[in-house]
Order: sequence, then structure tokens, then C-alpha cells
Amino acid sequence: MLKGTNASPGIALGKVLKIEHSEFEISKLNIENAEMEEKKLQDAVEESRKELIKVQDKAMKDFGEDKAKIFGTYLLVLEDPGFIDSAFEKIREDKVNAEYAISEVRDMFVDMFQAMDDDYMKERVADVKDVSSRIIRHILGIKHIDLSCLEEEVILVAHDLTPSDTAIMDKTKVLGFATNIGGKTSHTAIMAKSLEIPAVVGLKDITDRVKDGDYIAFNGSTGEVFINPDDKTIEAFKQLKAKYTKQKEELQGLIGKETKTVDGRIVELVSNMGSVKDISGILKNDAEGVGLYRTEFLYMEGEEAPSEEAQFEAYKTVLEALNNKPVVIRTLDIGGDKKLPYLKIEEEMNPFLGYRAIRLCLDKKDLFKTQLRALLRASVYGNLKIMFPMISSLQELLSAKAILEEVKVELKQEKLSYSENIEVGMMIEVPSAAIISDILAKYVDFFSIGTNDLIQYTCAVDRMNEKITHLYNQFNPAVLRLIKLVIDNAHKAQKWVGMCGESAGDERMIPILLGMGLDEFSMSPISILPARKLINSLKYEDAKKIADKVLGLETDEDINNYIKSLINK
Amino acid sequence: MLKGTNASPGIALGKVLKIEHSEFEISKLNIENAEMEEKKLQDAVEESRKELIKVQDKAMKDFGEDKAKIFGTYLLVLEDPGFIDSAFEKIREDKVNAEYAISEVRDMFVDMFQAMDDDYMKERVADVKDVSSRIIRHILGIKHIDLSCLEEEVILVAHDLTPSDTAIMDKTKVLGFATNIGGKTSHTAIMAKSLEIPAVVGLKDITDRVKDGDYIAFNGSTGEVFINPDDKTIEAFKQLKAKYTKQKEELQGLIGKETKTVDGRIVELVSNMGSVKDISGILKNDAEGVGLYRTEFLYMEGEEAPSEEAQFEAYKTVLEALNNKPVVIRTLDIGGDKKLPYLKIEEEMNPFLGYRAIRLCLDKKDLFKTQLRALLRASVYGNLKIMFPMISSLQELLSAKAILEEVKVELKQEKLSYSENIEVGMMIEVPSAAIISDILAKYVDFFSIGTNDLIQYTCAVDRMNEKITHLYNQFNPAVLRLIKLVIDNAHKAQKWVGMCGESAGDERMIPILLGMGLDEFSMSPISILPARKLINSLKYEDAKKIADKVLGLETDEDINNYIKSLINK
Repeated sequence: MLKGTNASPGIALGKVLKIEHSEFEISKLNIENAEMEEKKLQDAVEESRKELIKVQDKAMKDFGEDKAKIFGTYLLVLEDPGFIDSAFEKIREDKVNAEYAISEVRDMFVDMFQAMDDDYMKERVADVKDVSSRIIRHILGIKHIDLSCLEEEVILVAHDLTPSDTAIMDKTKVLGFATNIGGKTSHTAIMAKSLEIPAVVGLKDITDRVKDGDYIAFNGSTGEVFINPDDKTIEAFKQLKAKYTKQKEELQGLIGKETKTVDGRIVELVSNMGSVKDISGILKNDAEGVGLYRTEFLYMEGEEAPSEEAQFEAYKTVLEALNNKPVVIRTLDIGGDKKLPYLKIEEEMNPFLGYRAIRLCLDKKDLFKTQLRALLRASVYGNLKIMFPMISSLQELLSAKAILEEVKVELKQEKLSYSENIEVGMMIEVPSAAIISDILAKYVDFFSIGTNDLIQYTCAVDRMNEKITHLYNQFNPAVLRLIKLVIDNAHKAQKWVGMCGESAGDERMIPILLGMGLDEFSMSPISILPARKLINSLKYEDAKKIADKVLGLETDEDINNYIKSLINK
Repeated sequence: MLKGTNASPGIALGKVLKIEHSEFEISKLNIENAEMEEKKLQDAVEESRKELIKVQDKAMKDFGEDKAKIFGTYLLVLEDPGFIDSAFEKIREDKVNAEYAISEVRDMFVDMFQAMDDDYMKERVADVKDVSSRIIRHILGIKHIDLSCLEEEVILVAHDLTPSDTAIMDKTKVLGFATNIGGKTSHTAIMAKSLEIPAVVGLKDITDRVKDGDYIAFNGSTGEVFINPDDKTIEAFKQLKAKYTKQKEELQGLIGKETKTVDGRIVELVSNMGSVKDISGILKNDAEGVGLYRTEFLYMEGEEAPSEEAQFEAYKTVLEALNNKPVVIRTLDIGGDKKLPYLKIEEEMNPFLGYRAIRLCLDKKDLFKTQLRALLRASVYGNLKIMFPMISSLQELLSAKAILEEVKVELKQEKLSYSENIEVGMMIEVPSAAIISDILAKYVDFFSIGTNDLIQYTCAVDRMNEKITHLYNQFNPAVLRLIKLVIDNAHKAQKWVGMCGESAGDERMIPILLGMGLDEFSMSPISILPARKLINSLKYEDAKKIADKVLGLETDEDINNYIKSLINK
């Protein structure tokens, strides 16, 4: 039995198909017949082009324009005369074999791009390598497993999966992914979740441990992988799979239903999102709205800040797609571990305690105003709520609101319309904000608690720091007290409170949060139906008792044990 | 008027004496008479040796062994045959002038040391440079201002002051320091405070703005410097100086007095300290004990962790010197911005939120136990209280206490004695600890609030980050609420609470803290008598009202303005 990282839930049982992205050993040969080598190269380029167009079309159909873009870039490399013509020249002048010519040209381009002081050009290195490998594969006639037409159902085992692999893959034949490397936020994990294919990543050496045709069984929810398991294990996994499938079907039955406890408390189950690509998953999983649209990804895509128009289009698309359901859009939360090269922010000693989010926006007012203009203009297309991140004092909140008012006046003067009913709220993720939430509640329409940062600051623990992960704990009694305080303070001021950190979708936290009175739970789309199922099975009165009990315990260990005992009951 | 950093309080008025540490322009000359050059070098070395012995003696007398040590190192360089003999050889063989010979040898040694992969040897570069400059100065007969026998009272103006300058200086003739570079923790600032000489540092280009004999007036408490001021300004400064001197005399009258409000509330005024060298200042300023002994400096002095014996001696010295007054010793608080190269801790992305203080000690149990053994063994020599830093949860506190009990058992088995009455407490500097202080109070004898870190974490602001200093504020209402909460929770459990952050010595914070019920105020030695004066002038009942009023205000701005209005009343 191997143990990896649980990357995408579900049970997989089936035959292994190994995908190898091996480097080719290429020898230099002195050839006599240059024309024959040129012909080989010509054919390989043509084959590669056809292949890429096919992959691009499939990616476009399955995942949309954004994912397809990368293959467009590959095609550009293939069509770049500087690239291919250099290889033809090499064959003719140096009298070398086609694959050697391409590999020489590849190395030259890679060196050149890598030497450039430009991150964008550096990234082109991967494109050149992928395209070169493709051409060489065709020259050498190396058999390529065509993932787009698999003959039987398989579990893909690989060192890692590339965007090319997942884009072309015939999803109906793929039972699961198991890879050597990657974590919960790796490309493979994200694609697996988006495709709803079970996956375990970070298995270190699974590619060495299995061969094509081996039988494996794994649990994407726990990370356990069995290679050539015995009949008993297979039977157990079959039952698990049947159970999982049944649960999934049951969950489908919850689509269109309210989220309401047995004794009638209704809460809102909404989704987190990072880009317009997430919309289909949000709708499919019946989210009741968006609780957190992280706009920073809009800013991370390009080489400069997105224009007002580009932002307006993105916000409008989301608001229209959500069809008047609430959409909470958070203003730019950059800094910390997320950098924007074009802002040229100096290195900081403690970026998590640094110049980020609203701090940066209040300082770079033009950047902030552009976003607020786009948000206001988009507001007429749906039910927009604007949320400010990282507020740590009343002054910051009032400054941010003042700039919003300034922008409204400007729009009015320009006769551009915006909704008059936009709710304005703030994240509670800095301890000081939680502690003075009674004061802040007077000046906002809502709070959304960001547990990831709130835990980090309250316990003074960088959540990325592996030496102290034991101190980063959602069950820390101080964190739970702050959450309760924020909910109580908001309710006293007749305001609603949501949560958009990881905890909101965690089945161990949901009963506690429900009992504390949380009004809105925002989570990944795939957590929504399970959360609805859980909440619809609980009594609000019981949840209140659970919350009270938890708030009386002294350590996270005690709380964890108590919650475990409830779940196992 | 120039504005610099207020480095040491007091008013200075007087004539400028500029100290220049210029680099000499040295030419290579071909000489005929090598013997004459050798004689020059011989004499210069002899002069330098006498000068260094004199400086060393003076440093020893005025500051103690530690400060004197550096001149011992200089003497060793001077007596190193490899160094001086190489210069003699150069004169004889290359027929060059003495100063050129020394400069060549200096450059050779500097290059050699700098190339070594050894931090200790790299530091020798400065020694070689200082000694070489000294010899060259004597060869060239460059007039050197002998700070040990000044003819009249002066204000020293320099780019920066070196340890040589401050060691030899005749303090009775020096009215103040004004330097181009340096901050509040620079060598110049620390020496000025320790010598009680007014100082302003960080003036950027004051050495270009004044010449010897110019008259300047400055205020070491505000950082304001006037060059050749008019009569009115001089008069104003004379009055300020008289007032300051009178205040200082009045403060001397408070030595031996209680710290007690007009209506009878007694609090404890104790000192922060970093090493045994601080003892004299602590006693001179009539501290009622030590509220925070930062033991990490013991660990930063050497190239490995201090032995149990070395620690035992240091702790014993402090406990004996304090003569049964309470001494709170904090266990190792390393990490964050303080590194110990020999622990080989990996670089962290956010060191302030990282592997530090108690987190590191609980992980490196041997290191921790050595310190606890030394502390327990020293405990019989005075009134020791042990304090754990950076506690963020009850588990950490209980783990630290369990190790302390383990060490007690070991000592008992080894028949080594320790006091049975050692109070055990913890720092409150992580928000989670403040929030669960009701729980923690049951398991400790006292709390000490570390405001520097508490502000930093509560507001998520790195206090070193210049882009967001406006957010680092002791008047943040959330921070003040946490302080009040900690004091109330401790008192409910019949435990006492101190404070050892910067705020405890700040005249704007003292009334608030007193009113909140703080029991112990720990600060720099020079702040103790002013704090006693302030507290002895206040009514506890009034302070309570001030605290209540402050706790009702919504922003740090409001609080700051209110406190200002009180002080100006």
C-alpha cells in the first residue's frame, strides 16, 4: 500500500496505463542524403501541426478558450520560420540527421530565452521544449499513446500529467490519475477535481512500482493506493466505489433544494471562484451564489494590470451567469505569496505581514479606482456585493469606502450607470478586525471571515512553513472564539456574516459554524452538495449545543476529539 | 534646522568638533634609504602600540572587559610577525616608502581574509584596516584628535562614531553626538544612552553642513538640530537644558522611593536587560527588579550555544546583583529577526510567523534543557521567575512546563539544589494567547505582555516594514482591548500581569496601562525614574477613567488625540 496526497475524491479500480514523458537520446549522425532528412523533418512538422490542431480543438471544446490558448502558442512556435528554417539549414549545411538538427536548434533557443531578463520570454522555454519533443517523436516514429482514443478503461500513472495530456484525454475511459509528484494545488489535482476524476498525487515513485497492465485500486479521498491488491481488497474497494457512486447520485437529488436544517434554519451555500472558467462548475453544483470571487487571478494573467474594460467584461460575465444570485467580488488581494511582477514591489522580510491587499490598493489609488470603476459599471448586470480584503482598522475601511464614493461621483459625471443597491462588506482575516468587529459592523453591510489568514495571524503561524504546521489549526480555541465574536457582533448590528476560508466547506467545522450562527458558507463548487446534505440533516438547536460545547474546551486537541466522536456516532 | 533620529535624550549646546575617519591617499615612492623608512615604520608601530594600550585601559575602566576586548585584538594584529615583518621586507626588497609598504600588506591580508569561507576570519578585515590606518597616520604624522584629552567642551560631529572613539573619549568634555548615519539601535545611540550623553543620529549630511568651531544646539529627545542658531533659539535651548537638568535632578530624588499613585495604588517598576553589562545601569536607576532578561544575547555572542556553566554564571551574577529583587528571565527567544548561525535553521518565507522561540525550544529539547538546568541551579542565588516566550496555545505551555519538571527531577537525582519557589510565567505576544488568557492563567503564576510582537501579529504588520509603519500602532483599539482582556483574566485567576514591550515605558501609555490595572512595568533603565515620577503624580481612580474612555474610542487616531489633549492639559 502506498500513501500519497488525496487530490480528487472518488474510488478508482482498474488497469494501469503508464504515460512516460521521456527525454530522447539523440545522436549526431553524418548523413549523405540531406534531402531525405529534410523530408523527414518536413513530415514530422506536418504531423505535429495536425496533432496540435486536434489537441487545441479538443481543449477548446472541453475546457474553453483559456486552456486551449497554450496549444495556440505551441503552433506559433511550430510556424516560427526562425525556428524550423534553422533546422532545415542545419541539415543542409552541417549534413546532420533531422532529429539532431532540431535538438541543436532547440538548445540554442532555450539558451537564448533563458538568458533574457524577461519572465515572459523565460516561460517560452517550456513551449520550445514541448514542440521540439513532439517533432522528434514523429521523426523517430516513437509510438505515442494517444489519450484521445483509448481502447479500454485505464488508470493513468505518470511522473506528472501535462496540460497536453489532460487536454486531449478521453475522459470517458480514464478511471483515475496517480502521479509521482504534485500537491493539492498542482495542475494534475486541479484538473482532476474539475473533471471529477479520482486522483492521488505525490506518490514519489509509483511509476517505478507499476507496469502497464498492473491492476491498482485507490481512494482519492484518503490517498491510499494498492498495487495488484488481493481479492478481499478489490471487493472492499468495489463496495466503497458503489457507496461513493450512490452518495454522488443522492447529492444530485439535492440540486434545486434549499439549504435548511431539520428545524428550519436557512443558510446560504455559495461558491469561491478564481476566474470566469469556474462558472460552469458553480452552476452545475447548484451554488446559491458566489461568496468570494478572487479577482487577483485577473491581474496575474497578463504582463500588466487588466484594463477597466477587461475587468468590466469579466465581472459582467460572472454577474450575468449567476442570474441575480448574489456575487461577492473581493477587490485586489495581491502581495503576501502572490506577486505581480509589473507592480515592482520590493522584496519583504515577512510578506504575509507586509504591503498587500487593501494596504497596496489604498497606496496605489489609480489601480484601485480602475477596479472599482469596472465593478460599479458591471453592477447593473446582476446582484453585486463588493468586499475589501485585509482591513485591520476602521480608518482603512473608511478610506476604502471613501474612494468607492469618489468613483461613484465620477461615474455619475460621466453618465455611466451603476446599481444603487450594492452591498459593501469586508473580509475578517486580521485579528484586530475581528476584535473590533462591533465597531466595524456599523460601517459595512456584511463580513466574510477568511479563516486561512485569520488562523495564520491569530496563532502567528505561516501556514506554508512545514516546521510548524502542527500550530496551524482551525480548532484553535482562540480562532473559534474570534469567529463567534465576529458573528455575534455582526448580528447585533443586523448585518450578515459569511465565511470564505477552507473551514467553511469542512464537514467537521460546518456544525460548529452553523451553531455559532454563520449565515453564509462559501466553498469550492464540489463541496456544495455534500455541505447541503450535511446541513439538511442537522438540527440548528443541536448545532448550537455543539458550538457551545466546543467553545468551552481548552485545546484544539480536545475539540478535535470531541468532533471526531460526534462524526463516528 | 535639521531633523534626525532622537537617539539619546537631553539638550546639547556648544562648539562643533568634527571627527573624520578619512581614507588616506597613499602614493608609491621609490626610496633610496630603506633604513630611514624602516625606522619610520618602527616608530609608528611603537606609537600605535602605546596608543592602543592606553585606549584599552580606558575602555576597561569605563566600560568593562567586554568593550576592551576589541583593542586586545588590535594589539594582536600589531604584534603578528606575519603582518609587520612583511611590511619591513617590502621596504627592503622593493625599496618603497613605509606607508605604501603597510598599505600593500594591508590589502594582501584583507583580500586573504575576505576570501576565506569563515565568518570569524572575515571579521578580522576590520581589525587589520583599523590597525593599518593607525600606523599610517603615525608614519604620515597626521594630526589625530585625541578624544581622551579634549581642551574644551565640544559636540562631536561625525559620519559615525567608532568603538575606538567612544572608548577613549573624555566624557566630561563631550556635550553631545550628532552623526550622519545610524538608527536608534546603532552603536552610537547605544553608547550615548549608556553614557547619558544627548545624541541625534541619522542626520545624513551634517558633516558637510558644519565646520569645526560652528555652534550647534540640539534636542536629543526630538532629533531637532540647529546650526549656528540665532540668540533667541540659543536662549530657548538654554532654558530647555536648564529644565532638563532640573528634571534629572528631581528624578534623582525619587531613588529609593516607592512607585505609588496619589491614592495609594502600588505598582512595580522593573527593567529590561540583555546582558550582565546592563546591571550597573539597572541599579543606578533604582529598578525594583528585572522584568525581562533577554537571554538570547548570551546565545548570540559565541560560535556555539553557551554551556550550562556559562549560563549558570550569568544568571547567578544577575540574581546576586539584584539582591533578592525579582528577576524574570525569559527562555531563549531566537528566530524571527534574530539568528543563531550554529543552529543552521533554514531560511523562512515569513520568519516572524515561523520557527522561533518556544517552538524551536520544544523541538530542540537538549538546548532547552541546558538552559532550564542553568536557570534552576542559579535560582538559589536570588528571586528567579522563569518566563516562556511566544506561547500560542495551552499545549505549548504545558509541554514547556513538563520539560521544566523533568529537569527538576534530574537535578534532584544529581543532588543539585534549586529554589522551590520559582514562579513560572509566559509572555503574551501572540493574539491567540491573549484571547485564551483565561484558560492560560490557570496554569501560570504571571503573564508579561510583549507589546512589540502583540501589535505586529494583531494588526498583521511587520514592524520593520517601512511601507506600512502607519499600521503599527500601540493605540490600535484592538491591541488595547487585548491588553485589558489579559489583565482582567489574570486578575480573575489571582495572577499578576506585567508588560515588557516598548509601551510599558511610554508616558502616553502609562496612564492607560495603570488604569487597566497593570501590576508591573518593565522598561529601559533610563525610563524608570521618569515613569516613577509620572505614576506618583497620578490618581489610580483617574487612570481608570482614562482607560475606560480610551477603550470606548473607535480609532487609534481618536485615542492618540485624546491622550495628547491630556498631556497638554
